[in-house]
Amino acid sequence: MSAELARLVTSLAQRARAASLVLATAPTAAKDAALAKLADLIDASHAALLAANAQDLLSPDSRLLTPASRERLTLNSAKLTHLAQSVREVIALPDPVGTELEAWTRPNGLRIRKLRVPIGVIGIIYESRPNVTVDCAILCLKSGNASILRGGKESFHTNTALAELIRQALLAAGLPADAVQLIPTTDRAALTTLLKLDTLIHCIIPRGGESLIRYVTANSTIPVIKHYTGVCFVYIDRDADADLAEKILVNAKTQRPGVCNAAEQLLVHTAVAEQFLPRLASALLAKNVQLRCDPASTAILARSDLSALNSQLSTLVVPAAPADYTSEFLDLILAVRIVDSLETAITTINRDGSAHSDVIVTRDEAAARRFQAGVDSAAVFWNASTRFNDGFEFGFGAEIGISTDRLHARGPMGLRELCTYKFVIDGTGQVRT
Amino acid sequence: MSAELARLVTSLAQRARAASLVLATAPTAAKDAALAKLADLIDASHAALLAANAQDLLSPDSRLLTPASRERLTLNSAKLTHLAQSVREVIALPDPVGTELEAWTRPNGLRIRKLRVPIGVIGIIYESRPNVTVDCAILCLKSGNASILRGGKESFHTNTALAELIRQALLAAGLPADAVQLIPTTDRAALTTLLKLDTLIHCIIPRGGESLIRYVTANSTIPVIKHYTGVCFVYIDRDADADLAEKILVNAKTQRPGVCNAAEQLLVHTAVAEQFLPRLASALLAKNVQLRCDPASTAILARSDLSALNSQLSTLVVPAAPADYTSEFLDLILAVRIVDSLETAITTINRDGSAHSDVIVTRDEAAARRFQAGVDSAAVFWNASTRFNDGFEFGFGAEIGISTDRLHARGPMGLRELCTYKFVIDGTGQVRT
Repeated sequence: MSAELARLVTSLAQRARAASLVLATAPTAAKDAALAKLADLIDASHAALLAANAQDLLSPDSRLLTPASRERLTLNSAKLTHLAQSVREVIALPDPVGTELEAWTRPNGLRIRKLRVPIGVIGIIYESRPNVTVDCAILCLKSGNASILRGGKESFHTNTALAELIRQALLAAGLPADAVQLIPTTDRAALTTLLKLDTLIHCIIPRGGESLIRYVTANSTIPVIKHYTGVCFVYIDRDADADLAEKILVNAKTQRPGVCNAAEQLLVHTAVAEQFLPRLASALLAKNVQLRCDPASTAILARSDLSALNSQLSTLVVPAAPADYTSEFLDLILAVRIVDSLETAITTINRDGSAHSDVIVTRDEAAARRFQAGVDSAAVFWNASTRFNDGFEFGFGAEIGISTDRLHARGPMGLRELCTYKFVIDGTGQVRT
Repeated sequence: MSAELARLVTSLAQRARAASLVLATAPTAAKDAALAKLADLIDASHAALLAANAQDLLSPDSRLLTPASRERLTLNSAKLTHLAQSVREVIALPDPVGTELEAWTRPNGLRIRKLRVPIGVIGIIYESRPNVTVDCAILCLKSGNASILRGGKESFHTNTALAELIRQALLAAGLPADAVQLIPTTDRAALTTLLKLDTLIHCIIPRGGESLIRYVTANSTIPVIKHYTGVCFVYIDRDADADLAEKILVNAKTQRPGVCNAAEQLLVHTAVAEQFLPRLASALLAKNVQLRCDPASTAILARSDLSALNSQLSTLVVPAAPADYTSEFLDLILAVRIVDSLETAITTINRDGSAHSDVIVTRDEAAARRFQAGVDSAAVFWNASTRFNDGFEFGFGAEIGISTDRLHARGPMGLRELCTYKFVIDGTGQVRT
């Protein structure tokens, strides 16, 4: 049984590899035609898709989901209309394949061009949201990559129905149907086999929780691009504008607390802590954010008159435990510390953060430049919310995730980041001597 | 003992990580001063370095080496003078750190800049050549990365002596000595520990044979950039110039047969096989290249008058076994096949090659462009030797290897490929809504 499963997965990957070579040189018009067809098929298939989704929602696996996960699994007509629209938006994006990145001529006359090309075959390992099936398939398709999709078992029937539509759309556009394939089983052994097929699959992107990413990283011989979540810092410098500080901090913490680019940690320069902290705290408390404070910030808040603002003060301002200073809460919780200098802020962020998205609020350009140089993170902001570290906000037009790796792609990954390059070299008979 | 070793390696990596943050923003002048000092120290330390090298050459481990490996391990004054000179050459190369790769302004006024920055901490795992210690250390240093070096046990004393000079050079330039560290033991357990330190080390580059690279890939949770060797093809098209075909093929196969960008496989279009193959074969036989031929090429050569050219014909023209068509011989051996079309050549190369360096010899530009688009390799040449896939030949000024991976870096890796990027974003109080 296990050998049979391994053969099945290997055969699927071989067909994906063959399809990837066709897709790599497919014209933009053919890829866009497949996308247009897919959007139409989704629009025309609400009944079938919702029936498959209902099957998933009735399964024992899905009954164990949290209400939030169950909500993400649940499709409805509005979500499907939105999904079709997101497919049409990718048609409008420029095809990244074939762009000349650099070109030069060597003294011996060799003309070297560095051209953007698809990576090849990309494996996407994800959890319960079925729209990820379509999101990932269409971004891989537009960037000329074949994709192998392995979704969560809770959404298996929905994913299978969506994958069938993708297959029909590829065929309608004259493209190989094997260019997008869903692993047709939820057996974990299939994943283990997949992660070792390093001669057929060129890149693995896990999308999901930390335990999924760690499992994939530990078991894959294929390069993995990781999308861990973020321990993001807001640093209020001694020369910060108080209005800006409050506005940016509240947005970074509360606008969408459950995502990777939300702030989790606050550092305030000691010179302005006495003045700024009560104001910042009251703005956050008004949003029901719990503050986990170091002794210095606890002392400042104890002297202030916050109790008038919030009757739940004793539960919303609490002493921090050491683990809080490196935590990603993904909730209305913020760890708070006072720092004695810009340099201490930088050192603290590099030590306790996750190199994702960090911000300095200051009017002092020199301080901002030192912070942006010294903080070793994917996105370092001056006077703007960390929430802007996002492919759409960067203007990429699409996003397959926000890479927390340093190799290949760092930060938001759009269509260009799903490509590699090749060197195309023209000679007139040059040989090495 | 094992726990102690794990602590030692972890502590070393922690110090490397701290040093990397200093090095990341170190001025070019400081890095260049360290390089200049190192070159002077190497020049002034021939006696000590040769004594350490003699110790390695007397060790039981080194006595087991092949003559070629022993020659690579052996230093002499001329090699040391050359090594110091190679350090000085890196001073002249431009510092890759800080270059603005892209910059744009979003409609909301956010100014986004994508800047080239060091990767962080790079682990280099290599085998017996001690000059790799210096080569890798200086390229990492110039590109602002801290490096952790783990050389072969045969060259341990030589590597230790060289690492001590690097340490002195860093200190003399006011840079952290921990920016370049040699693992101070040859215990394999140290390597296993190192490969799991994914929060401290950001990239592993194994330099050595395939078994070393496979071991590292299978055991590392840190991203690995692989430098496998190459199964490189020369394809002689139906419209090839005969002189060019001979010149390029002989160079690609024989100029340095033991390297990854040497040709291992020949494909000849059937329309010109009868005319070209005897000439190509006689040129290769004159260089003592063994030809492992498919039935069609065997038949053509049997009809020709090669025996007059080479008395050893029966040992130099032999039937190919199936494995020969995917082999990297690294020797004066070439597998030979006749193909019926350009498309078959492309399909054959994508199936049997290693996506390293391949060439088409033709006068037909349309055929060349189709070949360069269709062959999915790091470097695809038209009318030039595969031997040009090399950092120096590309004009990079330095090379840490030729990546056979597709993510991050593909083909020659110079200083720029030892860098990643960060996004530096300037705002005026923008928040997400």
